[in-house]
Amino acid sequence: MSGEITVKADVLAEQMTAIFRAWGMAEDAIGKCVEIMLEADLMGIDSHGVTMLPTYEQLFKDGRLEMNPEVKVVKETPVMAMIDGGGSLGHYPSSIAMDLAIEKAKKVGMAAVTVRHSNHYGAAGVYALRAARHGLIGISTSSVWNPAIVPTRAAEPMFGTNPFAFAAPTRKNRPFLLDMATSTVAIGKLKLAWLAGKTLPEGWALTPEGKPELNPEQAMATRLMTPLGGSGTMSSHKGYGMAAMVEILSTMLAGATYAPLRNRPEGHYDIGHFFFALDPHAFRDETDFEDELDAMIDRLHNARPVDPAEPVLVPGDPEFDRRAKRERDGIPIAGPMVEMLAGIAERAGAPFTLARLAA
Amino acid sequence: MSGEITVKADVLAEQMTAIFRAWGMAEDAIGKCVEIMLEADLMGIDSHGVTMLPTYEQLFKDGRLEMNPEVKVVKETPVMAMIDGGGSLGHYPSSIAMDLAIEKAKKVGMAAVTVRHSNHYGAAGVYALRAARHGLIGISTSSVWNPAIVPTRAAEPMFGTNPFAFAAPTRKNRPFLLDMATSTVAIGKLKLAWLAGKTLPEGWALTPEGKPELNPEQAMATRLMTPLGGSGTMSSHKGYGMAAMVEILSTMLAGATYAPLRNRPEGHYDIGHFFFALDPHAFRDETDFEDELDAMIDRLHNARPVDPAEPVLVPGDPEFDRRAKRERDGIPIAGPMVEMLAGIAERAGAPFTLARLAA
Repeated sequence: MSGEITVKADVLAEQMTAIFRAWGMAEDAIGKCVEIMLEADLMGIDSHGVTMLPTYEQLFKDGRLEMNPEVKVVKETPVMAMIDGGGSLGHYPSSIAMDLAIEKAKKVGMAAVTVRHSNHYGAAGVYALRAARHGLIGISTSSVWNPAIVPTRAAEPMFGTNPFAFAAPTRKNRPFLLDMATSTVAIGKLKLAWLAGKTLPEGWALTPEGKPELNPEQAMATRLMTPLGGSGTMSSHKGYGMAAMVEILSTMLAGATYAPLRNRPEGHYDIGHFFFALDPHAFRDETDFEDELDAMIDRLHNARPVDPAEPVLVPGDPEFDRRAKRERDGIPIAGPMVEMLAGIAERAGAPFTLARLAA
Repeated sequence: MSGEITVKADVLAEQMTAIFRAWGMAEDAIGKCVEIMLEADLMGIDSHGVTMLPTYEQLFKDGRLEMNPEVKVVKETPVMAMIDGGGSLGHYPSSIAMDLAIEKAKKVGMAAVTVRHSNHYGAAGVYALRAARHGLIGISTSSVWNPAIVPTRAAEPMFGTNPFAFAAPTRKNRPFLLDMATSTVAIGKLKLAWLAGKTLPEGWALTPEGKPELNPEQAMATRLMTPLGGSGTMSSHKGYGMAAMVEILSTMLAGATYAPLRNRPEGHYDIGHFFFALDPHAFRDETDFEDELDAMIDRLHNARPVDPAEPVLVPGDPEFDRRAKRERDGIPIAGPMVEMLAGIAERAGAPFTLARLAA
């Protein structure tokens, strides 16, 4: 059993590239997929970076991923575009889509670009943040192929953990970055509780009868997650409504498939995404927007904390703190994950380039 | 003491109109304010319709409302406009703003309109729904003049209950309508618990020390509300992030004042709003968007419920059910509220036109 290793971003990129290349993925798709996955790993969104490779391997083997996808703009105006992802891994058409939304927003003030016929696109926040790095407000949402969120009052799941991300540019502080699943917690948190030998807090997951599920192993098996809020008393109808909103933007607007109504068990999942960019300079003069957002962020950082040892954070702080550390020190990869990567590389016929670190 | 009365919408409109007129409000402002308040009353969003009049009377007396506001479009392109509300009650510039966003979205595919220098604008959902009634997706957000939401880890409030609303058009079903405060519950729910003699559920409100506040009277006095999620364990950082997003769109983008940094104790509060409309027909052909959203709504209505006596609802169902009932039977107004309206009318020198019902 390998132990945990810590790898520099370029070394991890090399390994991911080798695997995608061995799967026969087109070079421009590889570049965009690796760039976005690596950004998630750098920001410590560990559930959405390299740890997704075993899932992608399964999708590939099941014939659900096109390795040489034809990504097509099927409709376009100055403020919008619809993209068909051609069955690609989601990062590739999504990267093109967000860049197109940014380009259009810089010209006319705002733009929305949808993607249909796609797959998992990684961390929603990476796309929204890209807009902020261009001085724009960015929004990104995605549907998910397997339902997990159980609507308030329901006893069956109707939405994936449908992520929603919003980012906004600053001058002095790091960008504002909200990146959230519309479930109370991400599914990865169930695994962390299980690894720690803890029971789940009431309100994270549900039994098939709609009662609180406290057993993490059971919860991982049934994947019945509450919408943000956790229970009717705590306004889970709001999290449910947000999950539905994400579905409307990512699926109905994009022309993708709503998972509970999918009638093809085989082949592509046809999930969809939504990207939006808005130029605050189309509204505000000079740097007024950024300066006033900086002032709000400063005020939030200076808010009186309940516990002085735990200062008030602003959305994005944990991600940017981890990013600074990982750019300097490298990205930690747990021992079992290193073993899984070795297996994936071997099955793909790709070099296991991390081997020299995992000795 | 008057008992509860039930009034037809036009009768309530007559009373509200009489009071606004006696306050000296301009006729076009009266028309738009009454229309939007009445829509909230019809949909049963009781905290945001006629029951707001005592608050508006106080704002008026405190010199915080302009009765003959100059509402100006200060910047405009085909996809956006910035409006200065001139210190008006918010409904008036907001009605103009949403209509402008709708008009522009129908021409070019989407548009955003902001309002600054405004006041309370009523129910966020009414504006978003207006877009849906025009066949568009609509979004509406607003800042609030008095902070109530306490960020995760903080012990002081940094945002109002910052509402977020999203609506989308259908063909067969009623529109999709998500209308939510970004706090766990609206402040009105504290009062309902107090009236019912109940303690509050843990996670709705906080003590000044950041502990759960269970006493509804205490909670009403301190107004320290949790963000959606309710606690750190239940991901209140997501509700906090959403409240901050609403502030960024409503305040920084609009050029309004962030309440915790307001340095004028007197005069206009200068709150802001954000309105967005997007034409799904700019993306999808014919009625594909509406039909696929209808299919999702049908699937949700048919989701297996935990309790067959409580079927699964779709966002907007409670509001539209109440609207159908109240259009038919009238709008109930509680006895104490009737008395307050009599007092407001008397102080304004307006006829108390509800008198014939409150006998």
